[in-house]
Amino acid sequence: MLTLLHHCSRNFLTFSTIQTVHRSYYTTQMGKRVAVVLAGCGVYDGSEIHEASAVLVHLSRGGASVNMFAPNIDQMHVVNHLKGEPSEEKRNVLVESARLARGDIQDLSKLSVKDHDAVIFPGGFGAAKNLCTWAVQGKDCSVNDEVKATLQAFHGEGKPIGLCCISPVLAAKVFPGCEVTVGIEKDDKYPDTTDTAAAINQLGCKHVSKSVSESHVDEKNKLVTTSAFMCKAPIHEIFDGIGAMVQDVLKLA
Amino acid sequence: MLTLLHHCSRNFLTFSTIQTVHRSYYTTQMGKRVAVVLAGCGVYDGSEIHEASAVLVHLSRGGASVNMFAPNIDQMHVVNHLKGEPSEEKRNVLVESARLARGDIQDLSKLSVKDHDAVIFPGGFGAAKNLCTWAVQGKDCSVNDEVKATLQAFHGEGKPIGLCCISPVLAAKVFPGCEVTVGIEKDDKYPDTTDTAAAINQLGCKHVSKSVSESHVDEKNKLVTTSAFMCKAPIHEIFDGIGAMVQDVLKLA
Repeated sequence: MLTLLHHCSRNFLTFSTIQTVHRSYYTTQMGKRVAVVLAGCGVYDGSEIHEASAVLVHLSRGGASVNMFAPNIDQMHVVNHLKGEPSEEKRNVLVESARLARGDIQDLSKLSVKDHDAVIFPGGFGAAKNLCTWAVQGKDCSVNDEVKATLQAFHGEGKPIGLCCISPVLAAKVFPGCEVTVGIEKDDKYPDTTDTAAAINQLGCKHVSKSVSESHVDEKNKLVTTSAFMCKAPIHEIFDGIGAMVQDVLKLA
Repeated sequence: MLTLLHHCSRNFLTFSTIQTVHRSYYTTQMGKRVAVVLAGCGVYDGSEIHEASAVLVHLSRGGASVNMFAPNIDQMHVVNHLKGEPSEEKRNVLVESARLARGDIQDLSKLSVKDHDAVIFPGGFGAAKNLCTWAVQGKDCSVNDEVKATLQAFHGEGKPIGLCCISPVLAAKVFPGCEVTVGIEKDDKYPDTTDTAAAINQLGCKHVSKSVSESHVDEKNKLVTTSAFMCKAPIHEIFDGIGAMVQDVLKLA
């Protein structure tokens, strides 16, 4: 296989060139410095791919420079996304997240708050399975130590935190009393929002119903949240809602 | 693990509900019917994730209904995207593509041309490794039989075909004499374009230099191509260039 790749590199598609070049895709010389924390690659066991991609597109359009991070841990499990059921494989969160980052990603333990103006967590089951145990334990979940430290460090420095889809539960667990949205309660377009909002409220936080096109800003805690794929919406509406979240994060940064 | 997932489904995140619901994310009742053919999930061994996501966002905004397909074959190899080198794993193209499709994808052998108005192939090394052997053999490559049959069937019916990044080589191989773009020749922002364009020209086709923001339309063959990540551009410019390609495909459909 190495031979095949080498052959490929030498003659047709210069893998090494492309690898080197990638550093520039997500960075510009101006603008806010934003960390994006991933949780794998695929909605059922990792970061929701289209949410992560939308975050990167909107940050790029907003002139931000981006560094991506993920915890260097095994995924809770691997889900065969075709069958919708777990497989017997093992995969690493950082290695799989590197697919979304085109190789340009670092271990979450290396994230330095002083080098960034904001942090954003895309959603997907990975946020509830690999970054915390919400998928299994709900409001009684534990949050990964590095994820918790990251959230507390940005919060402590007064730097904004953006979260979408199910990721706002991370903030609800770490910052009691905060305000977040995971969609509109008691609305068929948001099938999981009512139960998730109830758990958020039980944690002493305030769930605020917002449509997929809106973000909610908790000014006090500098938290910006939006429902994304918690809503049964066409993908371009989810893309636009994530744009609203990213723009609010950049405004606060 | 099944127990964990079941527990998760029952109490906190209703996996089965979300699974069912997904069918509606990429479909609307109106508009053109477009097939999207994927090649795995990850730039180095599958479909380029952000290109595939951009295609879906722009199709959704254009009111198209989308069905996704991928060949049910092993990937040429699996690349650890963190290290940038092949691993010893085996992965299936259809199963990994299902990550991009949130589970809503079919075997490419099931693609019916009469049920679609157009077909789009995102790029990434998967297009050059799994859909054909360009990454290893360049212009002497072979094209996967189902991919070739798909291209010929849409072409034969006069239905448009959209391709981006390295995927235009599929058209160059299958339709001698056609016109495509993979970027701007002899421009540092497009490090692999000059060699790729030369190979395309050697196949008896015509490479047309176009910037990342533009698509090229071969009116005679109804081929629409754009360079995407062949260009060292910020990701939002790649997103917009793919938008130009998608819009031209929808106009021709």
